[in-house]
Amino acid sequence: MVPAARLPVPLAVRPPPPHGPRPIASLRPLLGSPCIYATLRPAAAPLVLTRRGAKEHADAPAKVIDGKLVAKQVREEIAVEVARMKDAIGVVPGLAVILVGSRKDSQTYVRNKKKACEAVGIQSFEANLPEDSSEEEVIKHIASFNSDPSVHGILVQLPLPRHMNDENILNAVGIEKDVDGFHPLNIGRLAMQGRDPFFVPCTPKGCMELLHRHGVEIKGKRAVVIGRSNIVGMPAALLLQKANATVSIVHSQTKNPEEITRQADIVIAAVGVANLVRGNWIKPGAAIIDVGINPVDDPESPRGYRLVGDVCYEEASKVAGAITPVPGGVGPMTIAMLLANTLESAKRIHNFK
Amino acid sequence: MVPAARLPVPLAVRPPPPHGPRPIASLRPLLGSPCIYATLRPAAAPLVLTRRGAKEHADAPAKVIDGKLVAKQVREEIAVEVARMKDAIGVVPGLAVILVGSRKDSQTYVRNKKKACEAVGIQSFEANLPEDSSEEEVIKHIASFNSDPSVHGILVQLPLPRHMNDENILNAVGIEKDVDGFHPLNIGRLAMQGRDPFFVPCTPKGCMELLHRHGVEIKGKRAVVIGRSNIVGMPAALLLQKANATVSIVHSQTKNPEEITRQADIVIAAVGVANLVRGNWIKPGAAIIDVGINPVDDPESPRGYRLVGDVCYEEASKVAGAITPVPGGVGPMTIAMLLANTLESAKRIHNFK
Repeated sequence: MVPAARLPVPLAVRPPPPHGPRPIASLRPLLGSPCIYATLRPAAAPLVLTRRGAKEHADAPAKVIDGKLVAKQVREEIAVEVARMKDAIGVVPGLAVILVGSRKDSQTYVRNKKKACEAVGIQSFEANLPEDSSEEEVIKHIASFNSDPSVHGILVQLPLPRHMNDENILNAVGIEKDVDGFHPLNIGRLAMQGRDPFFVPCTPKGCMELLHRHGVEIKGKRAVVIGRSNIVGMPAALLLQKANATVSIVHSQTKNPEEITRQADIVIAAVGVANLVRGNWIKPGAAIIDVGINPVDDPESPRGYRLVGDVCYEEASKVAGAITPVPGGVGPMTIAMLLANTLESAKRIHNFK
Repeated sequence: MVPAARLPVPLAVRPPPPHGPRPIASLRPLLGSPCIYATLRPAAAPLVLTRRGAKEHADAPAKVIDGKLVAKQVREEIAVEVARMKDAIGVVPGLAVILVGSRKDSQTYVRNKKKACEAVGIQSFEANLPEDSSEEEVIKHIASFNSDPSVHGILVQLPLPRHMNDENILNAVGIEKDVDGFHPLNIGRLAMQGRDPFFVPCTPKGCMELLHRHGVEIKGKRAVVIGRSNIVGMPAALLLQKANATVSIVHSQTKNPEEITRQADIVIAAVGVANLVRGNWIKPGAAIIDVGINPVDDPESPRGYRLVGDVCYEEASKVAGAITPVPGGVGPMTIAMLLANTLESAKRIHNFK
C-alpha cells in the first residue's frame, strides 16, 4: 500500500496488472470470484451470508464513512487554526516539497499539495531539481529547508531517480520537520509506551481520524490490520495498539486471514489486493477502513478500468456496521493529515497552543 | 516485565505483594484459583481438559525448554568467537557498565555481568559514580565510553537515582554501542521491514533464541504476546512479526485474553502476573515462553516464598508441546544475549565476520 500523497504513479493512469492483482499466497482460490469484476460478470448466485447476525445487518446496510466530507471538515478546522496562529503570533505554517526530475505524475501530486496548502493558508515552498542531480545537491536543499524558520514541514516527493539512495535522502530531513513521520526514530517512538512520535504518518493518521470522528470505540476492541507496510499497515497497527485495541496483523504468510479478520470489531485493510476481503470475512457490525486503491478491468468505464478497494464493498457493506468507500474514503484524508502535521509542527516549533 | 539483567530489585529478595499479584483487569475471577499457590493449597479436583487434542498431550507432557542449558551453549559459542576474533585481529570485545549509587542489588547485578564477561573473554569496564552525581557527570562518563575504542557495548544499570531523568541519560549512549537495544531509533528499525536494528533487546532476543534452538517453526504460525512493555512484550511482538508469524498482542485492556491465547501456536507471556495463563488458555501442542518471574507466598520454602512464571506451569505443561520453566527458562538467556550483543557490536565495528 502506498498512501495517495506519495504514490509513485497516479492510480488513475496505472493500467491493471495483466493477470489481475497479486493475490495473498493462501487466498488464490478466492480471487477469481465475482466480486473482483462485479460489473463485468455479475455473481451467478446471490450472496449467502451464513454467519449469525449477518441477516440483521443485511437489513440495515453499513453506515458509509465519508472520507471526502471528513477531509473537508478537517481542512476547514486547519484553516481556522492557521488564521488564529497568524493573528496571534504572526507565524504562517510552511510546507516544503522537494521534487527531483520531471515525472508528470509527481508534478501533479506536488501541484495538488500546493493547492491544498493555499486553500488553508499554509505557505508552500518548492524545490524542483533536475533528474540528474546528485544526492549531495538534494541533501543540500533539504539542509537549507531544515534551517529555514519559515518551513515547518519537509516532504521529499517519491519516487526519487534510480541513481539515488532513498534512505540517505529521507534521513537528511530533520526529525522535527519530517511531516511524513516515516523516520525510524519516529516509528520507534510510535511503538513505545510513554513516548510520543513527532508526527504520525499521514495515511494511518487519516484512518484513526475517520474512526474517531465516526465515534468508533477502540479501547478494548479487537482490531485486525491486513498488510504490514512501513507506511500504512505497521504504523496503523501501532496506533490501534496505542489506543488500547487488541491488535492482530494479518499478512501474506497468514494461513487463515478470513478467520482472524472475522474476529475483529475494527478492520484496516492496506494490502493492495483488489476485493481481497469478502463479506464472509467481516464480523457483523464491524467498522471497516479500506486503504486500498486498486484498478480492475471495466470495459463499461470510459477509461477501461475502475478503482476498487481491498475490501469487496458490495458484500462487506451488507455485513459491516460502518465502511469507507473507495474512492472517497481514506484517500482524501491523506493530504488533509499532511496539512494537519504541518500545522502541528509549526505550533510545536513556536510553542503555540 | 523487567529482564533479569536490568531488574531494579533482585526478585529473590522482593517480598510478594500484600494482596497477591496485580491481576489483569478482566481476569480477576481466575486469580484466586489453586494454581497460584499450588504448593500451599493443592487443587481440589484434577484438571479437566476439555479441548480436543488435549488428551494426547496430557499423555505426552511438554518438552521442557531448558534455558540454563541453552544459555550455557550460547556462552560457550561466544567464548569460541571471542577467542577467534582476538587471534585473528587482536581485538577483545568490551562491555562498559555504569553504576550510579550503591544499591546492593544493582551492585550484585553488575558483579554478575562482570563475571559473565570474564568467563567468555569479554573485557569489562566499570564506572561507579556516587549517588549524588549530576546528570552531566553521568553523561560525561557515557561520552567517554562512547569514544573509547576498547568499549563495544555500554549499559547503564537501572534504576538511576531519582533526581536523574532516565531518558536523557539513556539517550546519551551511542546508538552503535547501545547493547540493550532500547533506543527508539533501534525499536523503529526493529518495527520496519527492510531495516535492521543495531541490537535486538536482550530478553526478547533470548525468547527467540529459545524458539529457534528448539526447532519451533515461526513463519505462518499464530503467535500471541501477553504484555506490551517497551523492553519485552512490544519488541518480542515485532520480532515474531519480522519472522513472519501472525501476531496478536494481549494486554490489560483485552477482553477475552484466554480465547485469543488459545489460538496461538506460540505464546510469549511477559506481563508480570503470577500464574495468569492457565492450562485452558493453551492450544494443545503450543510452544510457551514464560518471561515472568513472580514471587508468591510459600511458607514451606525457607525464604517464605517461591518464584513462579506468568504461566501456570503445572497445568500448561500438560497441554503445551514445549514450555520454559521458571526459574531456568528465559532468565539465564538475558545475560547470555547481552554478551552476544557485545560480541556482535565488536564484530560490526571492526568489520570482522
